[in-house]
Amino acid sequence: MERLRKIGFSKLTPLEEASDLLLSNISLTTVEVVETSSSLGRFLAESIKSGLNIPPFDRSAMDGYAVKAEDTFGSSPQNPRNLKLVGKIEIGEKSEGIQMKSGEAIRISTGAAIPLGADAVVKIEDTKIEEANISIYLPIVPGKNVSRKGEDIPQDSIVLNSGTEIFSSHIALLSSLGIETVKVHSRPKVSVFATGDELVEVGQMLGENQIYNSNSPMISNLTQQYGGTVIREETLKDDKILLKKKLYESVEDSDLVIFTGGTSVGTQDFLPETIQENGTILVHGIAIKPGSPVLIGVVEDKIVFCLPGTPVAAYLCFVELVGMALRKMMGASEIDPRTETVAKMSRDVPVSGMGYIHFLRVKIEKLGNEIIAHPVKLKGSGIISSLVQSDGIVKIHPYQEGLKKDDKVFVIRLK
Amino acid sequence: MERLRKIGFSKLTPLEEASDLLLSNISLTTVEVVETSSSLGRFLAESIKSGLNIPPFDRSAMDGYAVKAEDTFGSSPQNPRNLKLVGKIEIGEKSEGIQMKSGEAIRISTGAAIPLGADAVVKIEDTKIEEANISIYLPIVPGKNVSRKGEDIPQDSIVLNSGTEIFSSHIALLSSLGIETVKVHSRPKVSVFATGDELVEVGQMLGENQIYNSNSPMISNLTQQYGGTVIREETLKDDKILLKKKLYESVEDSDLVIFTGGTSVGTQDFLPETIQENGTILVHGIAIKPGSPVLIGVVEDKIVFCLPGTPVAAYLCFVELVGMALRKMMGASEIDPRTETVAKMSRDVPVSGMGYIHFLRVKIEKLGNEIIAHPVKLKGSGIISSLVQSDGIVKIHPYQEGLKKDDKVFVIRLK
Repeated sequence: MERLRKIGFSKLTPLEEASDLLLSNISLTTVEVVETSSSLGRFLAESIKSGLNIPPFDRSAMDGYAVKAEDTFGSSPQNPRNLKLVGKIEIGEKSEGIQMKSGEAIRISTGAAIPLGADAVVKIEDTKIEEANISIYLPIVPGKNVSRKGEDIPQDSIVLNSGTEIFSSHIALLSSLGIETVKVHSRPKVSVFATGDELVEVGQMLGENQIYNSNSPMISNLTQQYGGTVIREETLKDDKILLKKKLYESVEDSDLVIFTGGTSVGTQDFLPETIQENGTILVHGIAIKPGSPVLIGVVEDKIVFCLPGTPVAAYLCFVELVGMALRKMMGASEIDPRTETVAKMSRDVPVSGMGYIHFLRVKIEKLGNEIIAHPVKLKGSGIISSLVQSDGIVKIHPYQEGLKKDDKVFVIRLK
Repeated sequence: MERLRKIGFSKLTPLEEASDLLLSNISLTTVEVVETSSSLGRFLAESIKSGLNIPPFDRSAMDGYAVKAEDTFGSSPQNPRNLKLVGKIEIGEKSEGIQMKSGEAIRISTGAAIPLGADAVVKIEDTKIEEANISIYLPIVPGKNVSRKGEDIPQDSIVLNSGTEIFSSHIALLSSLGIETVKVHSRPKVSVFATGDELVEVGQMLGENQIYNSNSPMISNLTQQYGGTVIREETLKDDKILLKKKLYESVEDSDLVIFTGGTSVGTQDFLPETIQENGTILVHGIAIKPGSPVLIGVVEDKIVFCLPGTPVAAYLCFVELVGMALRKMMGASEIDPRTETVAKMSRDVPVSGMGYIHFLRVKIEKLGNEIIAHPVKLKGSGIISSLVQSDGIVKIHPYQEGLKKDDKVFVIRLK
């Protein structure tokens, strides 16, 4: 216990406090310029102002006839007003020089420019045409079926703020404004190490009492999903000199370093000592289950995570802490990308060990106009299968004595 | 109207019927083998059976002492039982040859193999050690703090079914079973065409009555997000001969072809005719708003989509139809990847035009233990900005006369 207290593990930090401490130690990555069409999943490092009006000109929102609205006043199915067809305007055609007079109509396609003199569009369905005579059956008001220049986006308005995550719809918006490139924060470079004498790489023979390394492929893929670039993925023995060497090597060229395993109090867990001797421990031990042995440190100004060795704990610590750190480094205004669903518990869930946030894994089911959350049965302590069987997690807070059937909960969706 | 009826647009098909028809015309892509660590986002083309037990051996779930449980019976804080420390077992060490006897205890790390003769682990916190004497303060039952061989995953059990989407947690599971490669369906090859005489590429000067092409970059990025590979992205003029040429060129080497624009009833919309003359139209016109002019056809056994030219309609048709087609081609057991959230409407939303599914764009807000859906104000008909301002869409069904304040709705999250 002496050694434990020395490395700061005896006191567990609440998750929120740990998270705040972590995020206050994050630095932004450098800014780079990327093509708009290749910016999916990045975060804007600039605000975007529109150089254009959208629509760029008054345009028709319907296939129909451009008219002067007042020419339609008083029309009805019994008493249609008659207008004279004097031309047509297709999308992309210049309407320059066309000047419509009272009593006239011009055939117009959706998206085409409204000609001078016209102020509304009659839908094709509300008319009847015979040669050059168009009968209008319904009166319309000025502006009807016309999209006004700049009504969606006025020129010089801010359309996207710095920190916005770029989805396909943002790429459409940026493209429609003619914006070819955007400034974004570069992807954090990440080193991933799995530690443990018991680990064997997939593809090799498994010896007695050994297990396959499943953490580093999982953590590397999560890193990618969260926008980082894995520049190093290695499996290391529990060897203090080796760990120190790899730590120094990686803080040199990485923005973030992740170890899995070796954070607990087993007699061979050298990582906490190694971090403390070569940098600062921000947090060691967080009041979460699973995942409590997690360690967050800073070495040479780089954040270093030591995640628990059990895959479920490593996964949960990643999505609760590492992922948000990665997004913060890229300037994300929303650091948690996960979606939440309101659901009703299908049964009671008691918890043992108050004072912790418990991550309950659940399957969800749509039933009528509700979503039901079913706790996933845990058969063992490794429980790697519990993650793939789950649709989401429910956080049971330290002040809650478990959950009751029909309790309303927020399910955080897994991906 | 004659031409309209000829090409089948006068009758709108319900979305569900259109979707069923589409999916029944989908063929699976070929099967390929990929490394497990590079399989993120793919779909299994095989069921996965475990060749191992997980855990592969009885192992300790705690840092503590391996004991015979019966040696602890009757112990209490007042009357501790005393055991003799005879060794220690670290993770990855062979426990072979170690045979524990009654009255003995062995120091053991989390994850290390339980030695022969022991059947439980006493947590380090529930003991006191003085030299080689360990005092046990609590009785424990056999099996306590021991993860049994195979209790999470028994050897020869099916752990993942064909059609499963591979997330990071699946990669962890597959790796823990020593599975180096998996069979998956190859990514569909997709050609993306934006059509329209009014379209100008981003980076070029905008002429009078022209607009920037925002659809093809959006559709290409959505295609990627949904697992497809874009092999061709071009902008085409409304030229029937050109459209036919491009259609034939692309069905040759693509699994799926997507056009945007030119599906409506404007006089220059040649796409419906071109598809009909060279293949089959499955559906033209779906009862959705926006998005009704969408067309789904088959040319040379390849699915061809013609999406409406307005970006919001193109986006919605993609996520409701194209995306699901892509996932079905890859054998996905769950063809819609979007998550849903139960929410309460913040105000009434009337709809005009019964008989359609209306896609209402909403922003969501977490308020106490509820999620509130606020309709996004639409200022114009192009409304490209409405998509980036929304967190999700609510489907208002044809039989619903709009929505009322406090109505419970399902919000489909956008990304």
